[in-house]
Amino acid sequence: MASHSSTLLSSPTFAPFSSHRLHYSPNLSTLRFSRPIRNKPNLALRCSVSIEKEVPETERPFTFLRDSDDATHSSSSTSSVRARFETMIRAAQDSVCDAIEAIEGGPKFKEDVWSRPGGGGGISRVLQDGNVFEKAGVNVSVVYGVMPPEAYRAAKGSASDQKPGPVPFFAAGVSSVLHPKNPFAPTLHFNYRYFETDAPKDVPGAPRQWWFGGGTDFTPAYIFEEDVKHFHSIQKQACDKFDPSFYPRFKKWCDDYFYIKHRDERRGLGGIFFDDLNDYDQEMLLSFATECANSVVPAYIPIVEKRKDMEFTEQHKAWQQLRRGRYVEFNLVYDRGTTFGLKTGGRIESILVSLPLSARWEYDHKPEEGTEEWKLLDACINPKEWI
Amino acid sequence: MASHSSTLLSSPTFAPFSSHRLHYSPNLSTLRFSRPIRNKPNLALRCSVSIEKEVPETERPFTFLRDSDDATHSSSSTSSVRARFETMIRAAQDSVCDAIEAIEGGPKFKEDVWSRPGGGGGISRVLQDGNVFEKAGVNVSVVYGVMPPEAYRAAKGSASDQKPGPVPFFAAGVSSVLHPKNPFAPTLHFNYRYFETDAPKDVPGAPRQWWFGGGTDFTPAYIFEEDVKHFHSIQKQACDKFDPSFYPRFKKWCDDYFYIKHRDERRGLGGIFFDDLNDYDQEMLLSFATECANSVVPAYIPIVEKRKDMEFTEQHKAWQQLRRGRYVEFNLVYDRGTTFGLKTGGRIESILVSLPLSARWEYDHKPEEGTEEWKLLDACINPKEWI
Repeated sequence: MASHSSTLLSSPTFAPFSSHRLHYSPNLSTLRFSRPIRNKPNLALRCSVSIEKEVPETERPFTFLRDSDDATHSSSSTSSVRARFETMIRAAQDSVCDAIEAIEGGPKFKEDVWSRPGGGGGISRVLQDGNVFEKAGVNVSVVYGVMPPEAYRAAKGSASDQKPGPVPFFAAGVSSVLHPKNPFAPTLHFNYRYFETDAPKDVPGAPRQWWFGGGTDFTPAYIFEEDVKHFHSIQKQACDKFDPSFYPRFKKWCDDYFYIKHRDERRGLGGIFFDDLNDYDQEMLLSFATECANSVVPAYIPIVEKRKDMEFTEQHKAWQQLRRGRYVEFNLVYDRGTTFGLKTGGRIESILVSLPLSARWEYDHKPEEGTEEWKLLDACINPKEWI
Repeated sequence: MASHSSTLLSSPTFAPFSSHRLHYSPNLSTLRFSRPIRNKPNLALRCSVSIEKEVPETERPFTFLRDSDDATHSSSSTSSVRARFETMIRAAQDSVCDAIEAIEGGPKFKEDVWSRPGGGGGISRVLQDGNVFEKAGVNVSVVYGVMPPEAYRAAKGSASDQKPGPVPFFAAGVSSVLHPKNPFAPTLHFNYRYFETDAPKDVPGAPRQWWFGGGTDFTPAYIFEEDVKHFHSIQKQACDKFDPSFYPRFKKWCDDYFYIKHRDERRGLGGIFFDDLNDYDQEMLLSFATECANSVVPAYIPIVEKRKDMEFTEQHKAWQQLRRGRYVEFNLVYDRGTTFGLKTGGRIESILVSLPLSARWEYDHKPEEGTEEWKLLDACINPKEWI
């Protein structure tokens, strides 16, 4: 298959190449480069990435890892982090899909499996126009690629004039957007990803790199304070098991990342978000990502159960549709993975499954002060501490 | 009022500063920089532009020009091109709005007038959820700004080491997007704009610059060949009055510009598009832009008259909504004016009035070969010569 060589739009702020790293957006089957500086979306670095075109598969393989990465490729006596991360995200995909299908009571996910000839692949699952969900997408993917040397972070062991050649990398993740029909049931997004580079062969002493990223955030059209508190409490519980600084840091990071600059609004009521996480023990971070992924169902499903059958008016629905419009604006204009993915030939249908089934734009719509719609908007403009 | 200082995303391809010029997207109340190379969208140059924040006005002023630009500021015995262009675009706005209101038979445009303290301003008109139109926006605006020296094209009379300071510019335009309700009636977009810089005072002999840009294109969800032929014939007639090369050149430019790269589709069935036009007599180009603007009503309104009351099914409507989704994708991801406008603090509601009232995204939707939906998609993938 032909491979795509693509170029990424540059960011307004340039930073030295050595401070950039390659990021992977698993929901998008794509890659992105950005500065490892927190809370700075769109700091993408211009460079070329080759991604092979995907081919459809008729069956789910046992693993998308290359043979060399499978159990044998372990850095310790246990399986490699690559293998355990793949196992974790596929289990997360299964458990979320099972929970959604249980609520749906009939409608099932449609599954697309695909692979890339050189290794890697993914499973996209979509349930559209169900009983409860307008559109629910849950994807996992595994990518093997090669990053240009500029994207590889300064190699510690090497002289400054000794730059590595193209550096092979591995990336894997689970990603999901769930849009319910009922305007009182919130939209949910989550994404957990793991990234590794090989150690460059031509630069003796240059290190192998790895990091984790991800988050879970939710986007109601109406505020039920008990729902928001429940959602954030579960995120905090997951964080607190590992580090008391995680929840406050990652809550703020989430508010900062899902920011629609031209509206001066967040797209929703937040949750947690982190990226470039490698300054903790690797096993600890694998457990943390696992804990976060396992928290999706208890954080979200009880809220949907409670709201899915509430009565609503056309006005409630129209407001939900307007907020869906904001969701589209964020994803198409700001989301690093989406915008890069669209420009580099990722699997378009997997990338855009994050968009709602339908959305609405009314000219100059301003909710009246004090209304429920206004309260939601106010909370998107002025992020609150919910717990 | 505070002024915005904004930074534009860089393009993947860099060109020398001297080959860049400042472009104005009047529908967006914003500015953009791009290489004066045809058929190359998104070749935007990174630089800062200051635009004052707009203030609402209660009445339409006689002109948005600064006093110094009004009739007295004429380069010939007649009024200045600035003044005549403003008169033309305001007349075009009136005639299109009158034609829309005549079809609507009741519903009227809502008007917002705004100005900027240092000169310039605009009139936004929107008719939403009417009898025939889902959303119709027709805007005019006039902008006075200052462009950074890098954006000013190589000054002919100056030595190469003599660069101008910030260069004042003037820009004016009319812009419109009309989304009908009936899925058999096409969406229309048109935009005509005029741009001028002052001669830099600190570079003796450096010239004043000017150029025209614009186009009219249409986006049906279903093909009626007679409609497409009618629409393109009127565009060709307008072009042929001035130069026989215009229609073929600007038709191709339109197909190339309104291209949704990640889908490998055009957003619609084209029309004409041009930019950076200054290599003809200025009076001739003013007449040409006027002729194009005057052709909007005869090119479009008869089609809407013919299609607005046709019976349709839910499937027809769903397909129209999917195509509206593509419209949103083009405007938010690729349209230079929109993407730059969103990032630089233009009047957001005027920028986003181009979005449809509602849009739809279905996962992996593929029309069956040979269907009417498939025929439209095929024509968007493989642009045709209609006349």
